[in-house]
Amino acid sequence: MSQMIAITPGEPAGIGPDLALMHAVHANNSDCIYFADPELLEQRARQLSLAVNINTINTFADADTDNAATLNVFPVKLDQPAEAGKLNPLNAPYVLDTIRLAVESQLEGNTAALMTGPIHKGVINDAGIPFTGHTEYLAQLAGGTPVMMLAAEAERLRVALATTHLPLSKVSQSITQESLQHIIEILHHDLQTKYGIAQPHILVCGLNPHAGEDGHLGTEEIEIISPVLDMLRSKGYNLEGPLPADTLFTPRYLDGADAVLAMYHDQGLPVLKHVGFGHAINITLGLPIIRTSVDHGTALPLAGSGKLETGSYQAALDSARLLAKKSRGVR
Amino acid sequence: MSQMIAITPGEPAGIGPDLALMHAVHANNSDCIYFADPELLEQRARQLSLAVNINTINTFADADTDNAATLNVFPVKLDQPAEAGKLNPLNAPYVLDTIRLAVESQLEGNTAALMTGPIHKGVINDAGIPFTGHTEYLAQLAGGTPVMMLAAEAERLRVALATTHLPLSKVSQSITQESLQHIIEILHHDLQTKYGIAQPHILVCGLNPHAGEDGHLGTEEIEIISPVLDMLRSKGYNLEGPLPADTLFTPRYLDGADAVLAMYHDQGLPVLKHVGFGHAINITLGLPIIRTSVDHGTALPLAGSGKLETGSYQAALDSARLLAKKSRGVR
Repeated sequence: MSQMIAITPGEPAGIGPDLALMHAVHANNSDCIYFADPELLEQRARQLSLAVNINTINTFADADTDNAATLNVFPVKLDQPAEAGKLNPLNAPYVLDTIRLAVESQLEGNTAALMTGPIHKGVINDAGIPFTGHTEYLAQLAGGTPVMMLAAEAERLRVALATTHLPLSKVSQSITQESLQHIIEILHHDLQTKYGIAQPHILVCGLNPHAGEDGHLGTEEIEIISPVLDMLRSKGYNLEGPLPADTLFTPRYLDGADAVLAMYHDQGLPVLKHVGFGHAINITLGLPIIRTSVDHGTALPLAGSGKLETGSYQAALDSARLLAKKSRGVR
Repeated sequence: MSQMIAITPGEPAGIGPDLALMHAVHANNSDCIYFADPELLEQRARQLSLAVNINTINTFADADTDNAATLNVFPVKLDQPAEAGKLNPLNAPYVLDTIRLAVESQLEGNTAALMTGPIHKGVINDAGIPFTGHTEYLAQLAGGTPVMMLAAEAERLRVALATTHLPLSKVSQSITQESLQHIIEILHHDLQTKYGIAQPHILVCGLNPHAGEDGHLGTEEIEIISPVLDMLRSKGYNLEGPLPADTLFTPRYLDGADAVLAMYHDQGLPVLKHVGFGHAINITLGLPIIRTSVDHGTALPLAGSGKLETGSYQAALDSARLLAKKSRGVR
C-alpha cells in the first residue's frame, strides 16, 4: 500500500503555497504529492526567489520518490492566476477540487495520509458555495464523525475536544451522554487504529471549574460525564476523570497519558497552543482517512513575503508520516 | 511603616504548619510574623524532626527581626490539640481568629502584607459557621470587592479572573458591562497601586472561542466586552482585546503585558497552572490589604509526613514581600 503523503497547500492567495515551497527547499519531500496548480507553485517560487524542481504527474505511478529536490505535483487547474494576498472567489472551486482529489487518492489507496494547508472559509462562501468548514467538508467527502484533536511537542501533548466552535453559553447543553460517549469511542478507537496504542490512557476534563466540586459548582459531571466514563470503563476503556482542567495539565496527570479530552475549545486549547506555539498541529479523528493540518490560517498579508516559520507545517507533515506508518488500515 | 509579613498557616490539621516549619529551617523568616498556636508549631516540628526556635510575641515590637533562625509567632490558642490529617470542627474558630488578627495587624499598620496558607471550607461549615470562602472572609473583614489573580514564574505570568467559582453554564449571564468594568478598574488600579506599574498593559480574553469571530460564535464580545474596553480606553487604560484565549497565551501577546484577564476559571487557569506547576500563587486584588496565598489545598493526607514541596509557599512569600515593598499605601 502506498505510503505517500498527499498535501493540499490550500488557499492559493495565502501562505500555503509559500510554506510548501519554503519547506521543500530544505527538506526531503520525495514521499509527498502536492495537489495544486504547478503554475501557481512556479510563480510563487519565483516571487520568493526559491529554486524548486516541479514534477507534474499524470498518474500516481509517475511520482519521483528518489529525488529529494523534486516536488511531485498532481495538477489541479486554477481558474484565475493567484495573486499573493488577494482572495479571488473564482478560485474557490479550485481549493475544493484539490481537497476532493487528495481525499479520493487516500480512499483509493494511492496516498496514505493527507496533510492540509490553510483555506479561507469566507471566500468560498463568497463564491456562492455552501461551506461550513474544512473538516466538515472532509467528513462530507469521506464519511464519519469528525473529532478535532490538537497536538504539540511532537504529539507529546494531545488535546481532543468534546465540542468545538460554539458560543460558550451553548456548551453545557450541547454535551449529552450520547454525544460524549460517541466522541470518547472515536478518540479511543483512533488512538488504537491510527496511532497503534493498544490501550489508550485518556484524561477527561470536567465541564465546570474544579470538575464541579461534587456538584457544588455544576452537575454535568455527575449527570453526564461520570456515567459515560463509568460505562466505558466497564468495557475496558482506560479513562481518568472527570478531572479539574486546571490541575490536569500538570506532569502528575499528563505523564503517561496518551490524550486529554477537553469539554470545550477554550478549556483545552490555550494550554495546548501555549506549549506548542508555532508548532501545534490539528488532527482530524473519526474519519476513514488520516488527516493532519497546520493550526494556523491563511495569513494573507504574509503570502509572498517569505517571512514565515515552517514549524507547524513541518510538525503536521511529521505527524502525517507517523500516522501513515502506525495506522493499520483505517479504511 | 512596618514591612513585616503576616503569615497564617491556616488549617492546623493540614500541611500549612508543615510548610511554615519546613520553609523556616532553610530560609530567613525574620521579617515574618506567624499567626498560629506556638504549641501546634512545636508539636508539628517534633513530628517532622525539625529544630525551630519559636519566639512567641506579645506585641509586634517583640518580633526578633535580627535572627534568621527565629520564628516570630503571634499566639492564637487552638481549642483542641491539632492532629495532622484529622479535621476537628472545634478548631474552626481558631482558623478564623488567626486570619482576623492578621488582617487587623495590616489594617493597623503592624504588618505590610498577608500571606495565607490553605484552610478547609468544609470543616468551618461543619462547625456551624456560615462561611463561603477564604477570600470572601477577607473581604468581610477588610472591605472591598475581591478580584482573584493567579501568578506563575515569579509573576512573569499573571491571570486575573472576571468570574471565579461558577458553573460553566452560568458564566455568560454573570458577566455584565457593569461587573466587567468594575473588575478591570480594580485590576488596573491594583497593578498601579500595589505593583507600582504606572500604565498597566492588560490583555483581555474574549468569552467565546476565537473571541466570538465577529459574532459568528457568540455576541458577548460585541455587546459586553468591547464596549467596556472602548470606554475604559477612552479614559487612558491600556487594554488589548477581546483576544482569542488560544492565541493570547503566546509570546506575541504576553511579551510586554502586565496581566491577562480571563473571563472564567478554566479559560485562564489551566495554562497558568501548567506554567507554574508547584510554584503558582494566588493574589487577591480589590481589598484594602495585600494578600497572597499558596495555590493548593490542605492536602490532609500529607500533613506531618514531611513529603512536601515548598515551591508555592516560597513564591507566595516572595510576592508578599515584593508587594509590601512596591505598594504605595493601599489602605
